[in-house]
Amino acid sequence: MPKMTFTVSATDGRARRGRLQTAHGPIDTPAFMPVGTAATVKAMTPEAVATTGAQCILGNTYHLMLRPGAERIRRLGGLHRFMNWPGPILTDSGGFQVWSLKDLRKLTEGGVAFRSHIDGAKHMLTPESAMDIQNALDADISMVLDECTPFGVDEAEARISMELSMRWAKRCKDAFEERPGYGLFGIVQGGVFPNLRRESAAALTAIGFDGYAVGGLAVGEGQDMMFRTLDATTPHLPADRPRYLMGVGKPSDLVGAVARGVDMFDCVLPTRSGRTDQAFTRRGQLNLRNTRHKDDPRPLDPDCSCYACANFSRAYVHHLVQAREILGGVLLSWHNLHYYQELMAGMRRAIEGGTFAAFKRDFEALQAAGDIPPIGDGAET
Amino acid sequence: MPKMTFTVSATDGRARRGRLQTAHGPIDTPAFMPVGTAATVKAMTPEAVATTGAQCILGNTYHLMLRPGAERIRRLGGLHRFMNWPGPILTDSGGFQVWSLKDLRKLTEGGVAFRSHIDGAKHMLTPESAMDIQNALDADISMVLDECTPFGVDEAEARISMELSMRWAKRCKDAFEERPGYGLFGIVQGGVFPNLRRESAAALTAIGFDGYAVGGLAVGEGQDMMFRTLDATTPHLPADRPRYLMGVGKPSDLVGAVARGVDMFDCVLPTRSGRTDQAFTRRGQLNLRNTRHKDDPRPLDPDCSCYACANFSRAYVHHLVQAREILGGVLLSWHNLHYYQELMAGMRRAIEGGTFAAFKRDFEALQAAGDIPPIGDGAET
Repeated sequence: MPKMTFTVSATDGRARRGRLQTAHGPIDTPAFMPVGTAATVKAMTPEAVATTGAQCILGNTYHLMLRPGAERIRRLGGLHRFMNWPGPILTDSGGFQVWSLKDLRKLTEGGVAFRSHIDGAKHMLTPESAMDIQNALDADISMVLDECTPFGVDEAEARISMELSMRWAKRCKDAFEERPGYGLFGIVQGGVFPNLRRESAAALTAIGFDGYAVGGLAVGEGQDMMFRTLDATTPHLPADRPRYLMGVGKPSDLVGAVARGVDMFDCVLPTRSGRTDQAFTRRGQLNLRNTRHKDDPRPLDPDCSCYACANFSRAYVHHLVQAREILGGVLLSWHNLHYYQELMAGMRRAIEGGTFAAFKRDFEALQAAGDIPPIGDGAET
Repeated sequence: MPKMTFTVSATDGRARRGRLQTAHGPIDTPAFMPVGTAATVKAMTPEAVATTGAQCILGNTYHLMLRPGAERIRRLGGLHRFMNWPGPILTDSGGFQVWSLKDLRKLTEGGVAFRSHIDGAKHMLTPESAMDIQNALDADISMVLDECTPFGVDEAEARISMELSMRWAKRCKDAFEERPGYGLFGIVQGGVFPNLRRESAAALTAIGFDGYAVGGLAVGEGQDMMFRTLDATTPHLPADRPRYLMGVGKPSDLVGAVARGVDMFDCVLPTRSGRTDQAFTRRGQLNLRNTRHKDDPRPLDPDCSCYACANFSRAYVHHLVQAREILGGVLLSWHNLHYYQELMAGMRRAIEGGTFAAFKRDFEALQAAGDIPPIGDGAET
C-alpha cells in the first residue's frame, strides 16, 4: 500500500462512484462518516455503528487533544484501538472547533492560541502541531489546519482568511508524515465568492493532497448558496482525488452535493437528532415526542431494516422518549445512522446504474410526501 | 405446560440448584433478574441484556401502569413484545413503589390510593387491580400486592401490617387468572421479627403460591439482620417452590442469601452503579472516575469476558465517564450485569459440584483482596 489510492468506477452526470483505500480498509463513496467527537459515536457501540454500514468515522482533534490527550491515545495504541473501531478514521484539524470558541482564541500567522472549554488551560494549535496530533491519534485521513471564514464577511476579508489557510495548508503538507495508506486532505476556503474558491482550489492542487475538502459551508449561508458555492468549486478540483464536504448535512444536502460531484460527508445531525427524539425516514422527519405515535405498533420507517425498526414500534420509542430512557436516544441514533448509510448506498447503486437523476427525483418526491398515514383513518397502510 | 414447574436438581447445605419453567422459557436458579423498570433495562438493548446470560428480567408495575399504561401494553401485544424481550418477565405488584411515595398515598383495607409522581393524577391499587394490571402486562410471574413494613416499627405494628398483607395475598390468589406457564408469588412480611416471618410463611403456604418471596428487607436493616431474618424465614417455606429475595442486592448479599436457601434476586444496583461510574469485579468495586485509571490499558476485570472487558480498556471507560458520554454508562451497566450473571452461574456450578462452601470462601477472599495492582509498581500483574 504505497499511498492512499482513490478509484472512480462510475460517474453519472457529475456524481461519482468511487473507493478510497486507507490503511484500515476501504471507503466506498459517496460516503457518510458518522461523527465520533470524543472517541465515541454518541450513544452507540462501535459494533452498532458498523451494523449501519458505516465504513469510516470522524474524530474531533480539538476534543481529543484536550481529553484524553493525543499522546495518551498514542500510548494506548492509537484511536482505532482506544475506541475499538478497526475501520478507517478521519480526524479534523481542530481548527473549526477552535474557531467556534470566539472569545477564547487568538489567531496569528503562526497558528491559533486558545483556552480549553473544559479547564481554561492555554493551548496552541499550529499547522505543524495539528499534524503531530493527528499522527498521534493515528488518523487514516488527516485534515490541514485552516481558518473557517465566517459567513457574511466581504470579499477582501474572505481573501485574507483564505490566503492564510493556503499558507497553513502548505505548512501542513510539509509537516505531514507520509505513511502507506495514510493521507492528508486540503481544505478549500473562500467563503461564498466563486473566484476565491477557484483560487483556493488551484492553490491546494498546486501543493498536492490525497483529497480535497470544501470547508466553510453549512455556517448559515443556506442550501442554495451552498450548492452554488459547490458548483463554483468542485469543477476546479482534481478528478482523481476524493472531495469531502465538511460538516454537511441534511439528507437533501447530501443528495444535492453528490449531484455536484462530492464524495464524502460528515455531520452530527443523525446522532444529535437521535438524542433529541427525531427520526429521519424515507418520508421525511418524525418527532417521536409527538403523542400521535403512542399507540402505533409500526416501526419508525416501515421500509427500514435497521435494528430499531426490526425490533421496536413507534409506540415503544415514543414511550422511551417520554420516560427519558437512554435506550430512546440509542435506538433513534441507530436508526438515523442506518438511514444515512442506506441513503448513501442508494446513491452509489444509482450512480453505478446510471439512474442518479431518477433516484434524486424519487428521493425528493418521497421526502415531500410526508409520513405514512395513521392507522384506522380509512387509508391503506 | 399445565402450571409453573420448579425442580431442584441439587442442594449443597441449604443452597439449592433449580430450574423454574415459565411460559417464556426456563429460569436457572439461583438467578439474578436485571430490573427493567420502565420496559427497558436502563442503558441496555434487550440483546445486550441477553448476552450477559440473564434469562428473566423484572418490570415495575407502578411505573408501567402510569406510563405507558398497562392496557396500552396489552393492546401492543404485551410487555415481551413491547420491549422485545422474548424471555420470562417478572413484575412486582407496584406496592413497594407506591409505599415509597409516602405523602402521596393513603392505605385502606381495600387497597392503596396514590397520586402519580408524573402528573399528580389519582390512582388506586387493590389486590384485584394489581392482578389485572400484571395480567395485562403478560408477566410470567406476578407478585401479590403487599404492604412493605417499614424498618424500625415495633412488633405490634409489624403484625398489623403483615396481617393486612396476608389478607391481600388471599385476595390476589382469588383474583389471579391461572394460565399455563404463568404463576403468582406470595410475599412474606413481618419485619425483623422471626415469629411474624414464620406466621407469614405459614399463612402464604396455606393459601398456596407458585413461589414465595421475602419482602420488606434491604430497607435499612443491614446485612446481618437481613441474613438473620432469612434464617428465620426460608426454613418455613415449601422446599418445592422457588424463593425470591426482593430488591437484593450487593454481591455479598447474593452469596449469603443463596447459602440460606434463596433462589431468585432482583436489584437495580448493577445498572444504577453502571450509570454512576462504578464497576463490580471479582476483586471488589471500582470507581471509574478515579484518575488512577487514565492510562491503564487493562480491562475493568482481567478475568471477565463481557463485551466491555473484551473490547475496551479502563483508560477508555475512564475517558467516557470524564466526558459524560452515554457509552460509559452502557459499558459499565453491561459489565456489571455480566458480573452478576457470572456470579450466579458460579454459584450454580458450585452447588452442582457440592463445593458451595469453598466457592463462598474464595469469593469473600477475592473481594477482600482489592483491585489488581497498578502497572509499573514492581508487582506482578
